[in-house]
Amino acid sequence: MEPMNKENGLLEPSERIDDLLTHDLRIIQSDEVFSFSMDAVLLARFAGIPSKGKIMDLCTGNGVIPLLLSTRTKAQIEGIEIQPRLAGMAKRSVIMNELQEKIMIREGDLRELYKETGYGVYDAVTVNPPYMPLNGSDIKLNRHQAIARHEISCTLEEVIESCYRLVKPGGKINMVHKPQRLGDIMALMRQYRLEPKRLRFVHPRAHLEANMVLIEAIRDGKPEVRLLPPLIVYDDNNRYCPEIMKIYYGSEEGEV
Amino acid sequence: MEPMNKENGLLEPSERIDDLLTHDLRIIQSDEVFSFSMDAVLLARFAGIPSKGKIMDLCTGNGVIPLLLSTRTKAQIEGIEIQPRLAGMAKRSVIMNELQEKIMIREGDLRELYKETGYGVYDAVTVNPPYMPLNGSDIKLNRHQAIARHEISCTLEEVIESCYRLVKPGGKINMVHKPQRLGDIMALMRQYRLEPKRLRFVHPRAHLEANMVLIEAIRDGKPEVRLLPPLIVYDDNNRYCPEIMKIYYGSEEGEV
Repeated sequence: MEPMNKENGLLEPSERIDDLLTHDLRIIQSDEVFSFSMDAVLLARFAGIPSKGKIMDLCTGNGVIPLLLSTRTKAQIEGIEIQPRLAGMAKRSVIMNELQEKIMIREGDLRELYKETGYGVYDAVTVNPPYMPLNGSDIKLNRHQAIARHEISCTLEEVIESCYRLVKPGGKINMVHKPQRLGDIMALMRQYRLEPKRLRFVHPRAHLEANMVLIEAIRDGKPEVRLLPPLIVYDDNNRYCPEIMKIYYGSEEGEV
Repeated sequence: MEPMNKENGLLEPSERIDDLLTHDLRIIQSDEVFSFSMDAVLLARFAGIPSKGKIMDLCTGNGVIPLLLSTRTKAQIEGIEIQPRLAGMAKRSVIMNELQEKIMIREGDLRELYKETGYGVYDAVTVNPPYMPLNGSDIKLNRHQAIARHEISCTLEEVIESCYRLVKPGGKINMVHKPQRLGDIMALMRQYRLEPKRLRFVHPRAHLEANMVLIEAIRDGKPEVRLLPPLIVYDDNNRYCPEIMKIYYGSEEGEV
């Protein structure tokens, strides 16, 4: 019973511990505060990351992306989260997995981060930002959920500008977002010298419109996009397609 | 024998007459000069066009897009082509199909067209521009083919600027291009106030990268992209997928 007690000591009200299925990792979640979704899992697999060096995950939430990335690289991984409650969950998950040597969670505002770290210090930056613009949206969520989903604490432009400031020239930015915003994303990336190089669209089914886009950009990269095969989530029998099964339950560690 | 002779009178050396399969239309082609490819057929089906009004097809080549569009709309359709030999083929195809009342082919430079027509006079503009930038590309084609494929007579920016000048506010631009250029296309469209609204990627096979992108933009449109289901050309048995069969041989006239 001791391990259970030890873990329970890490939890605050409404929190639970979930397995990160493909790995020997666990994560603290809470439906009232924050639980990761498929977006983060796909980004953590899609992202081009260095085998060593330094990686920064913006809008890290409960730290799911740093945890998943830690299985793919020997790099030092940092995550930054503006909400103290979520940053606390992330820090406790790092401790629970005994990854304190590899992952550092910062509580703070990504817009101010470059003042502390300096410019161009990360080999790669990942980000699963809030998707929804503020204008006109009817926010029926609690404050934690609203900040994670809406551009309350940072706009898309502020996220992209921060990526530009933080990443080295030639370094990689990886983002997951909604295809609806593709026009804004591509224009802003160009404006901040982050050149999109790999795009992959995620379709719930083969005959449906995409509801997610994975984008890898390179700072000061040459303009030339590779448009990867579509990633289809469900087959005609409402089962996960083989590639999704492999990402969730499989053991392969390569980029998707 | 008379119809054959009449048609043969329309042909110059190396030219032949092909059927446009889904329709009761024929087109003059020449492998030495210009033959349309799948790109044009997919664009002509994908493009959002008005039921009446005026449509302009830039880089019209042998007029394949105006011919195909004529089956979908009562609008007046124009095409412009800079190469006299191709413009001549297009004009003769229009006569051969007795579509002179509906389609007008201009021989001229799309960059100068607005001086003649005025600004913002078309309800929709379609374009299948040259795909290949000039820099460093080793052009091993004859002059006709080179102008159709490389940015010799117009750059991507000149094409997009011309679309902006020619289309009405709220009017639609439809383009087919290579996904590699997506970064440039999206940035230039934003620069010229043409907002991408519908994108569809064409993959040779479901597991391969896209080799074509269909884009619909609206002048002064609200930034919000719909990312349509992937269009897959060949199935696992090397046969055309049903949707491609329908576009080539079927009778449906809607947008893809």
